[in-house]
Parts: sequence; structure tokens; C-alpha cells
Amino acid sequence: MADYTLHSYWRSSCSWRVRWALELKGLSHSISPVNLLKSEQFGDTYVALNPNSRLPTLTFDDNVVSGSLAIIEYLEERHPEKPLYPNDLITKAKVRELVNIIACDTQPVQNLAVMKYYSDDQEKRKAYAKHWITRGLAAYEAVASRVAGTYSVGGTLTLADICLIPQVYNANRFGVDLDQFPTIKRVWNTCMALESCLKASPEMQIDAVKA
Amino acid sequence: MADYTLHSYWRSSCSWRVRWALELKGLSHSISPVNLLKSEQFGDTYVALNPNSRLPTLTFDDNVVSGSLAIIEYLEERHPEKPLYPNDLITKAKVRELVNIIACDTQPVQNLAVMKYYSDDQEKRKAYAKHWITRGLAAYEAVASRVAGTYSVGGTLTLADICLIPQVYNANRFGVDLDQFPTIKRVWNTCMALESCLKASPEMQIDAVKA
Repeated sequence: MADYTLHSYWRSSCSWRVRWALELKGLSHSISPVNLLKSEQFGDTYVALNPNSRLPTLTFDDNVVSGSLAIIEYLEERHPEKPLYPNDLITKAKVRELVNIIACDTQPVQNLAVMKYYSDDQEKRKAYAKHWITRGLAAYEAVASRVAGTYSVGGTLTLADICLIPQVYNANRFGVDLDQFPTIKRVWNTCMALESCLKASPEMQIDAVKA
Repeated sequence: MADYTLHSYWRSSCSWRVRWALELKGLSHSISPVNLLKSEQFGDTYVALNPNSRLPTLTFDDNVVSGSLAIIEYLEERHPEKPLYPNDLITKAKVRELVNIIACDTQPVQNLAVMKYYSDDQEKRKAYAKHWITRGLAAYEAVASRVAGTYSVGGTLTLADICLIPQVYNANRFGVDLDQFPTIKRVWNTCMALESCLKASPEMQIDAVKA
């Protein structure tokens, strides 16, 4: 029986972060799909769990935790094996600096709800998303290029990579040219060859819509 | 001599979070002002420290950490006395859920740069900021009303409050009616009577511009 239930949408980049963390830590879980395009995040069932109407939410026993970073930090502390952070506090802070660039400065601005408010015009929305994702990845590249190894920070996969890859997937959807970000492109290629990443990726989800 | 230097702008809500955390933990620090209205965050001096061109940044010894949450999590781990989180992991996750609502879903969307891109029209910007702050605080209220005591989560000040109060200050600037959020209004009144909060507040900063 699954210990954790993740309320997730296949194309939600924040859901991907948690799916990947669950895979990396080898934690038994089931997926409960919430269809953002059908506005199920505003339905009574989901709002009762998470009044914020955003994904993802993790439920287990009688507990509910929402928000990808809150969930992942909880999993990291409850299941410290296969850590998502380095031990050294300064290096750990650098991981969190990169996490912040994606999770605070980039993804929220190109969130579906924010884009809908910005414009009804699909082309304007696309230009808007492309602008903010490019800005965010440029900042990520500049910071990561100083500290990267095989992964964004040194030679070990961290939460920075877990946040980066779903954002790069969105970047590809919106036509951002990755060649301008060589560190990011290298880390993307490395991560997209990992089984844990692929199992958590949008197209592998039970609620994925085939093109 | 100050151990930490915080690169800060008086009205930056993310800077306020770190100023308050430094005060709460009683950590010796100096403030290095970065004037956002003069675009000093894009100047060579600041970009060399933080290529993300956002505030705040903490420098100490030869180290640089940027992003308010990355900085505060570092301070929390390096100086665990006077903790900003409860011990219980589930309660701690609830604090982080509230932190996420402000730091990911609310502040970034009403960030100065994002508002500038949204419109040149001051009235449109104001309506935009008011919309997204109201949405964010409504989500915060709905979650916090289930777990609040004197503070947002139980009877002890946590990082949730540290993120909330600067956001409420912005809400007031943009004309959001706090009466619709009774829990938030109560926590605001409690926190604004704390010396640590006031010392970190915008008007008390060396770079504050008098009205």
C-alpha cells in the first residue's frame, strides 16, 4: 500500500519536483490526478485539502502538506537517506539560492493563472512566458556556472536540479533557446538520462495526454 | 565589527524578512543599501555578487548567499538558537506551506520588475498588485485560520510570520482591505508591536526615504 498520495497534474512543473523527490528517495506513493485545465484545483474536493488551489499536495495518514518546497523539505527531514542537499552549510545555501531562482523568481511568474490574468492572447502569453523563463534561466546559468560539476552544484544531484529540469521542460515548450545556457543544457542532458527523472516526467504520468 | 553584511533596500519585502531574522537571532550585522529605484541591482558591483539582480544578498568572510529563503535557512542552521521553526516535522511543514504561499505564490508576482513588464500604467499596476496580493492573502488566511494561535502557526513566532508581515505592509500600500482576513490582521497587529519586527521595518532603515 502506498504511504503517500500526491495530488498532481502531469504537466505541472511543481508536481514534477515532488514526483522526482519521491522516486529518488524510493518512497512508496500513489498519484491522484488533479486536472488544471478542467479547473479541478478550484473544486470543493481539492480546496478542502488545499485552499491555495495550487499543486501539488501530499496527503498521508491524517496529514496534508501543500506546496512543492514545503513537501520536499518535509520528505528530506523525515527520510534523510539519499539526501537532496550537500552536508556543507555554505554549499547547501548555494543549492537553495538556485532553488529560489526557479521556485520564487521564475515558475510563479509563468504560472498558468498568472498568464491567464496577463492576457487572453495566446501569442502575448507565449512571449511573456518566454521573457520570464529566459530571465530566470540566465540568472540560474550565471550562478550555476560558478559552482556546477556534473550537476548544478558539484557532482551530486540536489534539489537545485530537481527544480531546474521541470523549468527547462517549460522553457522548451515556450521556445527558449537553451544554447545560450551551456551549464543548464549540460545538466538537462545528464538528468534526462536518469530513470528517477524520467519516471517523474510529464509524459510518464497516468494522467498524461498524448500529443 | 559586524559579522554579516546584508545588501538590502528599505522597501524590499524580501530584505525585511532577512533583517527581521537577523534581529530575532541577535546576529551582529551591517546594512549595505542597494537602491532599486536607481537600478543599482543591475550595476556591476551588485551583479558581481548576485547575477540574479534581486535582493537581498548576504556576504560574510568570503561567502555570498542570495535569496531571502536561502539566507534565512542558512542562518537557521548555522545559528539554531532562537529557532524560526517548530520542532515537530508536520507543524514545521505547515509553516513552510505558509512561507511558500507568500514567497512563491504572492511576492514574486507583484515584484517591481514583473509589474513594470505588465504595464506602464500606474493604475493598472496597482490593480494588478492588489489582485494578486488579495488572492495570496486569502489563501494564507484559509490555511492559517486552521492552525493559528497568537501567531500564524500556534503560539510562537515562525518564518511564516516573517514572510507574512512584509507582504501585509505591501498589501496596505496597494489598498487591500485587511478586514476580510481576520487571522492575518490579528497577527499583523501582534507582530507590529514587536521590537525585532519594527527595527527591521522599512521606515527604520538607514536608506528609508521620508514621505
